[in-house]
Amino acid sequence: MLVVMKAQATPEQIQAVCEAIEGLGYRAHPMPGAERTAIGITGNKGEVERGNLESLPGVSEVIRVTKAYKLASRDVKEEDTVVRFAGTDAAIGGKELAIVAGPCSIESREQAFTIASKVVAAGAQFFRGGAFKPRTSPYAFQGLGLEALRIMAEIREQFGLRIVTEALDTESLEQVAEWADVIQIGARNMQNFSLLKKAGRLRKPVLVKRGLSATLDEFLMSAEYVMSEGNYQVILCERGVRTFADHARNTLDLSIIPALKKVSHLPILIDPSHGTGRRDSVLPMARAAVAAGADGVMVEVHNHPEAALSDGPQSIFPDQFAGMMNELEQIAPVVGRTLTRGIRVSVEA
Amino acid sequence: MLVVMKAQATPEQIQAVCEAIEGLGYRAHPMPGAERTAIGITGNKGEVERGNLESLPGVSEVIRVTKAYKLASRDVKEEDTVVRFAGTDAAIGGKELAIVAGPCSIESREQAFTIASKVVAAGAQFFRGGAFKPRTSPYAFQGLGLEALRIMAEIREQFGLRIVTEALDTESLEQVAEWADVIQIGARNMQNFSLLKKAGRLRKPVLVKRGLSATLDEFLMSAEYVMSEGNYQVILCERGVRTFADHARNTLDLSIIPALKKVSHLPILIDPSHGTGRRDSVLPMARAAVAAGADGVMVEVHNHPEAALSDGPQSIFPDQFAGMMNELEQIAPVVGRTLTRGIRVSVEA
Amino acid sequence: MLVVMKAQATPEQIQAVCEAIEGLGYRAHPMPGAERTAIGITGNKGEVERGNLESLPGVSEVIRVTKAYKLASRDVKEEDTVVRFAGTDAAIGGKELAIVAGPCSIESREQAFTIASKVVAAGAQFFRGGAFKPRTSPYAFQGLGLEALRIMAEIREQFGLRIVTEALDTESLEQVAEWADVIQIGARNMQNFSLLKKAGRLRKPVLVKRGLSATLDEFLMSAEYVMSEGNYQVILCERGVRTFADHARNTLDLSIIPALKKVSHLPILIDPSHGTGRRDSVLPMARAAVAAGADGVMVEVHNHPEAALSDGPQSIFPDQFAGMMNELEQIAPVVGRTLTRGIRVSVEA
Amino acid sequence: MLVVMKAQATPEQIQAVCEAIEGLGYRAHPMPGAERTAIGITGNKGEVERGNLESLPGVSEVIRVTKAYKLASRDVKEEDTVVRFAGTDAAIGGKELAIVAGPCSIESREQAFTIASKVVAAGAQFFRGGAFKPRTSPYAFQGLGLEALRIMAEIREQFGLRIVTEALDTESLEQVAEWADVIQIGARNMQNFSLLKKAGRLRKPVLVKRGLSATLDEFLMSAEYVMSEGNYQVILCERGVRTFADHARNTLDLSIIPALKKVSHLPILIDPSHGTGRRDSVLPMARAAVAAGADGVMVEVHNHPEAALSDGPQSIFPDQFAGMMNELEQIAPVVGRTLTRGIRVSVEA
Repeated sequence: MLVVMKAQATPEQIQAVCEAIEGLGYRAHPMPGAERTAIGITGNKGEVERGNLESLPGVSEVIRVTKAYKLASRDVKEEDTVVRFAGTDAAIGGKELAIVAGPCSIESREQAFTIASKVVAAGAQFFRGGAFKPRTSPYAFQGLGLEALRIMAEIREQFGLRIVTEALDTESLEQVAEWADVIQIGARNMQNFSLLKKAGRLRKPVLVKRGLSATLDEFLMSAEYVMSEGNYQVILCERGVRTFADHARNTLDLSIIPALKKVSHLPILIDPSHGTGRRDSVLPMARAAVAAGADGVMVEVHNHPEAALSDGPQSIFPDQFAGMMNELEQIAPVVGRTLTRGIRVSVEA
Repeated sequence: MLVVMKAQATPEQIQAVCEAIEGLGYRAHPMPGAERTAIGITGNKGEVERGNLESLPGVSEVIRVTKAYKLASRDVKEEDTVVRFAGTDAAIGGKELAIVAGPCSIESREQAFTIASKVVAAGAQFFRGGAFKPRTSPYAFQGLGLEALRIMAEIREQFGLRIVTEALDTESLEQVAEWADVIQIGARNMQNFSLLKKAGRLRKPVLVKRGLSATLDEFLMSAEYVMSEGNYQVILCERGVRTFADHARNTLDLSIIPALKKVSHLPILIDPSHGTGRRDSVLPMARAAVAAGADGVMVEVHNHPEAALSDGPQSIFPDQFAGMMNELEQIAPVVGRTLTRGIRVSVEA
Repeated sequence: MLVVMKAQATPEQIQAVCEAIEGLGYRAHPMPGAERTAIGITGNKGEVERGNLESLPGVSEVIRVTKAYKLASRDVKEEDTVVRFAGTDAAIGGKELAIVAGPCSIESREQAFTIASKVVAAGAQFFRGGAFKPRTSPYAFQGLGLEALRIMAEIREQFGLRIVTEALDTESLEQVAEWADVIQIGARNMQNFSLLKKAGRLRKPVLVKRGLSATLDEFLMSAEYVMSEGNYQVILCERGVRTFADHARNTLDLSIIPALKKVSHLPILIDPSHGTGRRDSVLPMARAAVAAGADGVMVEVHNHPEAALSDGPQSIFPDQFAGMMNELEQIAPVVGRTLTRGIRVSVEA
Repeated sequence: MLVVMKAQATPEQIQAVCEAIEGLGYRAHPMPGAERTAIGITGNKGEVERGNLESLPGVSEVIRVTKAYKLASRDVKEEDTVVRFAGTDAAIGGKELAIVAGPCSIESREQAFTIASKVVAAGAQFFRGGAFKPRTSPYAFQGLGLEALRIMAEIREQFGLRIVTEALDTESLEQVAEWADVIQIGARNMQNFSLLKKAGRLRKPVLVKRGLSATLDEFLMSAEYVMSEGNYQVILCERGVRTFADHARNTLDLSIIPALKKVSHLPILIDPSHGTGRRDSVLPMARAAVAAGADGVMVEVHNHPEAALSDGPQSIFPDQFAGMMNELEQIAPVVGRTLTRGIRVSVEA
């Protein structure tokens, strides 16, 4: 159920409606829009009796949301969600393309700084790097953990780049929330509902990667898990799905971009590195992603991919990354976007 | 790496080899077999220098395990693993077929006891019932939690049935480990490596369900995560994978049975309920599972499936379950198995 | 649309209804059942006006068939179709399991006779052998063609085995129809609608193999193409579909058996050789197929699989085939079937 | 095997090598390149003895082609294949993007001309329209056949557009070859090897659509079937593959573009209409296709999609097509391409 407020509804009226909803034993999710505020209602098993709510001051109408996902739906929030980063001009979901780049894993302070200096020079706003790695084998390199988080915090300090890194479980979630700017939930945890709920209780943006065999509805339901706990700063990320095709590590499903944009207001990034697993396919698919309407891309960059501790074959070289930025800059205007290089951090931030 | 002990090696010699391995900074996993003990070595990045170990008393040879999974491999343990339940004659993985039955979710004490009385009458040894439910939607019924665990403990008390139920996260894992006999890790958590490792530190059997798009190697690597922490009582469970086919909810991949049996010593159960999502397909696929060599089946039984809070359409009626037992009993001898009805619990248990 | 005749309708009345249908510009397909005859109507774009037909003598009712497949549907014909072979007791679709065995390709007269003598000794009723091979590569062995057909005709003469072999195109279809007993349409041609229609104009049984990514509906629509031309002797064959799973060459989808049995009267065979591509999986999956309710199995047998010109790794040895027959014989009664060894050919045939 | 001629080899020397190859019982396929000619050898089961060939005048070296596809491989022909159309400036595979547009089916002369006038006005060079339709149901509209071919020939006459249409079987192949400019082999016939070979004996360009579950290797092997018969004018077309994803009719696999470009010299078009089955996804995916490096796109355009006899929901409106052309024109230079509107036909053509 969704309560749509009148355009001229006051903050007090909105507050009163929220309290009425909570008083009925449900949960209220006010979603401010450009013209008016809508208030999502969750926690109801069946239909909420709408009579009481419709008669409250400032309420325009009460409508039923028929999709399984509610807060993630355009029914509830028509305008695109833009995730902003306080004290900077960085954003994910707006007119500006968001570029996230960095190594698969943080391997050392030197490696991380070398790569960060390259990607910032080419104009990225976000730095990605694995601290806690979900590895298929228990015997494989599992990441530097807290040490990696500290290195990335230094990189933010020095270069201004905002930090995106994955949390695997309750313990790493707390650490990532403390040190990073965006909490990534990996593809293998897309339906780790317990972790999603915990991330929903935090107030940091959460980037949810699509599971290897997740449908669009399941993908949005995972976002909904985060949002249902009150954290509406959710970013989706397509990273390839598993099919019979064997010419790439995964099949990057770019057609999910227009399909998602139609039903959801959440921003969507594309990860062509995991999406293809092949260095020679990363640039073509990054261009394709932007051309198809993505809000940005997330790519793995490594200065010595052949020596990388993980995912070397899919990491591009810093100069390829710079070339990619030039190409995306040219495609951006065709889809009504811009690509502004770098990030501006205000003094007080 | 794998240290194969001589047939006549003494427990002291085995112990000494384990200590030598640990002394080198690795982890030793002694796996007793019918004829001799093998000791798996994990924690080594590259190849262990074998000279020192080969010269220890009682050592027959040191061999390299080339597969990514080691402890789950037949290279390390040739004999089938049989998971036994102290104080009972129940087992999973031996000559006897193991039958796990019960409702998708525990909905009430009455519902659970009604179903339990039916499945025990038909001869099941294990009772399954969801206490913590991983639901695609945050708004769907999430299970009765601890209350469900208590109800199932009563069922064990009254009927002797051993209890199988799913743990979703650290919190529920502790509770499940306390109250149940088998800890189930669900398909959506098959690559929740943090949860697998925590389950590996417990000493209760762990049933790992195959992920919706997991390869055989990934499936065994998830078992390996549990085993690498020292818990070797792992049961695999195929429950259907995701494909383009739309005549069933999932595609039950029975050919993984002979493929797994060839490379791994772990027992494998089949879940035709989730595997097909159709009541009319559960019995045919349960029969097929046993005919293909499965160590048992896990099926959803409900007395009023049309009113079930979850998965009603795939739950069979108690009388269908009884019919299934008769059919499986007849197929069992063709594959060198037996189906003994019920469970015997010794007084001291 | 479907005209259901009264139980006591005379052949003349049935004939008159068929003529009335043809007179309306449609096509009539009389399908005799155990109790009464139904007459399928095809060729109608929309709904046929039912008034005229309902008033004809002997007509019980005129009903609408809502599924896309009509003649293949149980709505049109409730009883299972049994494909019989004149002058023999062989049948596909009845209480008796049908066993089809032979090499992937006919390589020489000696090879074919050696294998035929083995499979007839173990009790097969049907001999399969490729004369025209659909090979992925234009440079691979393409089959002996007409020579292979002649060799198989000799095998029928000598051993009584009925012959199943694939037709690839118009030319080979004519030859196969002339020399063989069952015309196989391969998986890669399942939607070669032109070939299906041509096979539908013949009066020999047609075995349609499921395409590598065909849904149940598409599979039945291909059968419908054959039937819409008047040939109702169609046998379905599941041979594995293409998925991400890599432990077998294809994923054998046994759950299509109960799903097909529910909506269609056509018999279904299972091919565990192509379905798995692994010799060690053929017997387990053949057993599983029968346990799941298949009408029979089709397996590749070769005396020297390691030297086979095609599909050696999935061919079983003659003694494995004999063992399989023993196992299937034991499973058959559990599903209300029998396995009678061999084929009886009457003198006049 | 591949005979690489010296840059300065004369036509007579090339001819002599071809004759020597044929004299050995193989087939010679001379493939002229920008710098030198290579001669592919097919028809050899094993390795050709290279001694004799290497000593012939003009031969630089004889090398082994290890891939299953040979004539389709970059090993044999390094330069991109450009398929040209005599008497026009149209081409598929060069620097110019090729745009193929038109209705799914030719429904009437008026419908076809209306759409043709729109797509030619927006700048297409090729007109597509189904004359022979491969329909899942035998009862669905099967196309106007020869009448449709005649209508399209008139369209070529009037607008200059070159005609692309599908051939289903031997009969329609002959007709399509007579009336059209490009013979399309549909996805369902991608492994109809008999049809591919027949198309290979013609001297008209052949557009091969990827099968719904075809791997890259299988796709190229189908092209190889055409080429092995001497017809080297092959165009590949990706049109979506079948996966579990349900937000689109198929999953458009754009990452096959860079993967194909790496190993093959053949041009590749993308069909976002069949590839997504959704009008709202056609433009985004057409842009993405060009950004990823496709040689052009093939889209369905209809003036009244809601009344189309087939595939209405995926057909775009003429004004959307015009908008698409504007967008592709802007993206083209980013990938080193140009989009020139329309087709120039010389007087003598």
